Amino acid sequence: MPDLTPLLSPASVAVIGASNDTDTLRGRIMHVLDCHDFGGSIYPVSRSQPTVMGRQAYAAISDIPEKVDLAILIIPAVHVPATLEDCAACGVKAALILASGFAEEESADGFGLQTQIREIAARSDMLIAGPNSEGFANLKLRLCATFSPAVEGEDMVLVPEWSKSGRIAVVAQSGGMGFAFYDRGRPKQLRFSHIVTTGNEACIESLDVVEHLIDKDEADVFLIFMEDVKTPAKLAKIAEKALHAGKPIIVTKIGHSDAGIRAAASHTASLAGSHRTYRAIFDRYGVIEGQDTEEMVDIAAGFAYFGDRLPAGRRIGIFTASGGGGGWLADSCVAAGLEVPMLDPVTRAEIDKHLPSYGTSQNPVDGTAGVVRTLGYARISSMIAASGRIDAVIAITSARNASALTREREALADLAATTAKPVFIWSYTLPHPDSINVLACAGLPLFINMNNSTRTVVAMARYHEVRNRVRVGRKPRQQREIEPTWRQRLVAAPVINTEIDTMTLLANAGIDVIGGTLARTADEAAAAVEAIGKPVALKIQSPDLLHKSDAGGVMLGVEGRAAAAAGFEKLHRQIAVYHPTARVLGVLVQPLAPPGLEMIVGIENRTGFGPVVMVGFGGTAVEASGDVSFAAAPLDRVDAEEMLAGLRGSALLNGSKYDINAVLNLVSSLSTFASINDDIVAEIDLNPVIVHGPGQGVSVVDALLIKHAEA
Amino acid sequence: MPDLTPLLSPASVAVIGASNDTDTLRGRIMHVLDCHDFGGSIYPVSRSQPTVMGRQAYAAISDIPEKVDLAILIIPAVHVPATLEDCAACGVKAALILASGFAEEESADGFGLQTQIREIAARSDMLIAGPNSEGFANLKLRLCATFSPAVEGEDMVLVPEWSKSGRIAVVAQSGGMGFAFYDRGRPKQLRFSHIVTTGNEACIESLDVVEHLIDKDEADVFLIFMEDVKTPAKLAKIAEKALHAGKPIIVTKIGHSDAGIRAAASHTASLAGSHRTYRAIFDRYGVIEGQDTEEMVDIAAGFAYFGDRLPAGRRIGIFTASGGGGGWLADSCVAAGLEVPMLDPVTRAEIDKHLPSYGTSQNPVDGTAGVVRTLGYARISSMIAASGRIDAVIAITSARNASALTREREALADLAATTAKPVFIWSYTLPHPDSINVLACAGLPLFINMNNSTRTVVAMARYHEVRNRVRVGRKPRQQREIEPTWRQRLVAAPVINTEIDTMTLLANAGIDVIGGTLARTADEAAAAVEAIGKPVALKIQSPDLLHKSDAGGVMLGVEGRAAAAAGFEKLHRQIAVYHPTARVLGVLVQPLAPPGLEMIVGIENRTGFGPVVMVGFGGTAVEASGDVSFAAAPLDRVDAEEMLAGLRGSALLNGSKYDINAVLNLVSSLSTFASINDDIVAEIDLNPVIVHGPGQGVSVVDALLIKHAEA
Repeated sequence: MPDLTPLLSPASVAVIGASNDTDTLRGRIMHVLDCHDFGGSIYPVSRSQPTVMGRQAYAAISDIPEKVDLAILIIPAVHVPATLEDCAACGVKAALILASGFAEEESADGFGLQTQIREIAARSDMLIAGPNSEGFANLKLRLCATFSPAVEGEDMVLVPEWSKSGRIAVVAQSGGMGFAFYDRGRPKQLRFSHIVTTGNEACIESLDVVEHLIDKDEADVFLIFMEDVKTPAKLAKIAEKALHAGKPIIVTKIGHSDAGIRAAASHTASLAGSHRTYRAIFDRYGVIEGQDTEEMVDIAAGFAYFGDRLPAGRRIGIFTASGGGGGWLADSCVAAGLEVPMLDPVTRAEIDKHLPSYGTSQNPVDGTAGVVRTLGYARISSMIAASGRIDAVIAITSARNASALTREREALADLAATTAKPVFIWSYTLPHPDSINVLACAGLPLFINMNNSTRTVVAMARYHEVRNRVRVGRKPRQQREIEPTWRQRLVAAPVINTEIDTMTLLANAGIDVIGGTLARTADEAAAAVEAIGKPVALKIQSPDLLHKSDAGGVMLGVEGRAAAAAGFEKLHRQIAVYHPTARVLGVLVQPLAPPGLEMIVGIENRTGFGPVVMVGFGGTAVEASGDVSFAAAPLDRVDAEEMLAGLRGSALLNGSKYDINAVLNLVSSLSTFASINDDIVAEIDLNPVIVHGPGQGVSVVDALLIKHAEA
Repeated sequence: MPDLTPLLSPASVAVIGASNDTDTLRGRIMHVLDCHDFGGSIYPVSRSQPTVMGRQAYAAISDIPEKVDLAILIIPAVHVPATLEDCAACGVKAALILASGFAEEESADGFGLQTQIREIAARSDMLIAGPNSEGFANLKLRLCATFSPAVEGEDMVLVPEWSKSGRIAVVAQSGGMGFAFYDRGRPKQLRFSHIVTTGNEACIESLDVVEHLIDKDEADVFLIFMEDVKTPAKLAKIAEKALHAGKPIIVTKIGHSDAGIRAAASHTASLAGSHRTYRAIFDRYGVIEGQDTEEMVDIAAGFAYFGDRLPAGRRIGIFTASGGGGGWLADSCVAAGLEVPMLDPVTRAEIDKHLPSYGTSQNPVDGTAGVVRTLGYARISSMIAASGRIDAVIAITSARNASALTREREALADLAATTAKPVFIWSYTLPHPDSINVLACAGLPLFINMNNSTRTVVAMARYHEVRNRVRVGRKPRQQREIEPTWRQRLVAAPVINTEIDTMTLLANAGIDVIGGTLARTADEAAAAVEAIGKPVALKIQSPDLLHKSDAGGVMLGVEGRAAAAAGFEKLHRQIAVYHPTARVLGVLVQPLAPPGLEMIVGIENRTGFGPVVMVGFGGTAVEASGDVSFAAAPLDRVDAEEMLAGLRGSALLNGSKYDINAVLNLVSSLSTFASINDDIVAEIDLNPVIVHGPGQGVSVVDALLIKHAEA
């Protein structure tokens, strides 16, 4: 990973195309830069103007006396390549292209210009960001290299110095959306470190920026607005790095819907990946998906204040002076997957001392306005947090009047500094700015949206769980160190593997499958059936017939030599008539599996993001049931258990009726196989997998393995 | 329904317990009243003070020279009954009890006092609201009979006169939550008509207030915060009335969760009903459930501006100048169940004339900032709305700067006045107050939360559908006009009806069941089996054994006289040993149903809200699958179809495999039976119902009907 310091933390900046006219973006960026007290140098470059906004302007980048770290290009697209060459020739370390007119236009000229940019980047050492970017702001340096109105304002305080919040970085392809996070978070007095918008990402990608800020420890929490991932392999890698660093990522990935995909394509000149794959990787690495700007900012705030004290579980204590508010929040907690347990008797007795007759200490603790006056939010919150039955506290307030909170300013700061469990505040009225300031100054997150408070707790508790999984040594992502002989066989195998070939490849790798005998003649079929000695299935094996049953290539319950030979001939005849061009390798003779619960286990590895495991109900009827669950490989047994729990029909997976253990082993071993061989395996279907009774294992009744064409 | 005018629109008001001390609630209410220019008289009643806040005070209600419409009681609970008696004696028409210390305390004294209030209400003609209420505000009259800080402020404009919004009424048991809706909606410049908080609802209930405001046409949209419904039968009745009046109700019903129920119980001294029943009634009458204050206010705003022009379908046209924002909103639409179709070629050609090369007219229409300048939001929105493929438009803006919207103030007002399809605005940045004002003045709703904009469109489209169902003559709620003979048999039936009795009752009412023969002796069993001539089921019939299989009371596949007689004896022996006290009425001999898809159809009618139909998968395994759907009876076939579509596994209900028609008939006829007999039927289970192939009908294989004990 290149060091992005010259781009994001330059000592000197040139604005190529700078103008005095603030009705144009070329003037607006100069004005925005001037609004803030950036400590480095700023050099306007203008062909027509001797000065720009009081600064001497230079006709060309080569005329600037100092070495320039960052050149910002806001000039017509057609001039960008030559100007980049000039910059590279002058030793400029980084270029930020705000100009548009590139791949996002979906024209031959636009694609051509964007290709030229990539070629220049490859030839030079220069970092190149954009094109079609809205720029970035490094708020610590007070450098706003953007024309975004969100940071335009002469008396604007970018970040309150006194804020106790952790540092939040925003990374977005979209300029409008990227700066919108800041626009929402600023009135909450959160400490943003960067807003970086990356545009078309011809060279530098969003995830490069994230990685840089992790490596340099310049941010604590990330808000990402993701339209696509240009280099899919980076996603799991950087998500894993962020998880290990304890720097949570809150993301929205757009393009789930057809219309979303249309917009992403026309905007970023790229295709959106499959959302299920993204989600599988997000789940694995504790990446939190948000649903709207406000929610994402609120979740970031939770981590920014209490990222070092994550809730150890999902049990919430609620304080309220409004019974209605307490009941509503309790519902919201339960709907979000949290618990609102009764407090323990000792805690209750302690709280009861302070409650009037119509209050209640059970949980929600309904304390009435009197308790707020006498005890205060800080004290009642710590009393609730003291209960061993509680992992986090949400205190309900009406912050439209700041007097109550202001009165206990110090107690709140003390609470925030000393509590071992996170404490969140939800205001059911719109808060007075003083209320926001008191809480931000104390170090407590304030929620204006009730559901955002509960989603934040869920996100933090979930993140805590995933971090713990890492600590106790979860199966790592890659482990292709040895090259066993079965891998050589996999390398040698054809692209499309029939059932028997797939079964053999998997069996060699230690994965338990039902197997069978490949019969190439009617006699071989008869002998195989005789050897098995009970009813069998006969199945045509052909790389051209992936759906054997639909193709009329399967017979079930065949018994005895004669029936076997007849069956063999009949299958061949049928295929010859209906699929005359199919290459037939023989007939698989397979013992019939005892009945059981039909499931499917599969691998998808075509997206570039790494292999994803699918588990579902229904076997051959999986499309009808639609009850499937995805996860990023490899999975250990705990991961596999979580996956099964994610199925809607998970109640069917009763350990007293079915061999769940065997399912977990199969899912885990198949996922490991796919992970080790992710360079070879494109797709695997084990379908159906029949799950038998406890101790009876599973039967993998059909199997298909497809390799990458180029592997 | 009594006329609540003296309570909500009084000409004269007495405040009993009024004080000069604004540190107490008794002083605060006087101050709040004084903040607003109420046209009627206000009389303080105080034992100790000759004047209160500059007004002459009276020692007792009887001293007031004028007839008092409304007396507000803010005095210790213990004095409330006597004071109410005084009020009634003086001809006071309505009393509002703000005092607490009643049933919400869950003490004997509290319950006793609340009972006394009810007795006084029953004896007198006086309307009594509360106790433990936070009062109400009639904003049109500028009467704020409350101590809520949400309406406290001397220079406060309660409702902007120029607002083009429809009238929104808030009705809540909880004072804090009730006024919070107003607190959220006021900065949006919405026109609120009332905020009524009802407290313990000893006499007047939330739904009475709703009904009054519908009858008097004093509000257009309702926001309800519901903790419980004191008189369940009112819910369906008033929801139906609101639907017919075209006045949408947006509700949150708290108490889904255990903790929520605990809070509701301790706060309102009442138990929350089953949420599934509420939801079934909400669905039937187009009542919209909201999830948080902001969302509910936003949905209300959608109706307040475009309630007369509901979206005819779910197809959304999006305009954006931010590609990222357009993609995100499109995802949000699709996730919410809306469509974002391509615009038609004619509309696209029209729009394309105004787009730059990097814009797109497909949908989202990505117009760039330039289009906003040249065309404006109003014109591009009407161009999109003109497409026949679109039912509503959402235009995306960044309203943090008001200049663009202000520039086209008149065009926006014109758009709002003339558009036949609703147009919504979403701002991805926090809006400048001038932006809010421009849009409110024009008559267009502004959303700050993206998902709220999509949920609003869904809610309005759904409301449109339900209203249409009513217009085309949906099955009405009650139709017990005739008393057919089968109803007399139902009246005469015992409380718990065995399978054969239930089958007979249903068959008499025209509902198709599998039936069978009740054998009282082994010989009768043998004869019945012989008559059927194929394998049968034998089932013990006992009102004491509701789960026959679990009780060992069922034998399947019995064939021939001898086996039948032996089976009869065996079942009796088993029951005699394991359930010696069970009354056995005989053995049901029933032809075995052919195999098929197992479902369950049931009725629940114990809540007082009216019968609710349940349909689910799994038959006897329904608990494991948990895949069930509820709806309020009666259902016609369209309702029943919607119910089936609501099942997670609805994909299984393939009309080419199963007789879906027969399922719809069964659900509809059973629901009608339950509705007609809702005074008698407490519970029905048809379980399992086996669904056969197309044209083959269903087999109701087991049935149970339980009557209300008192019926």
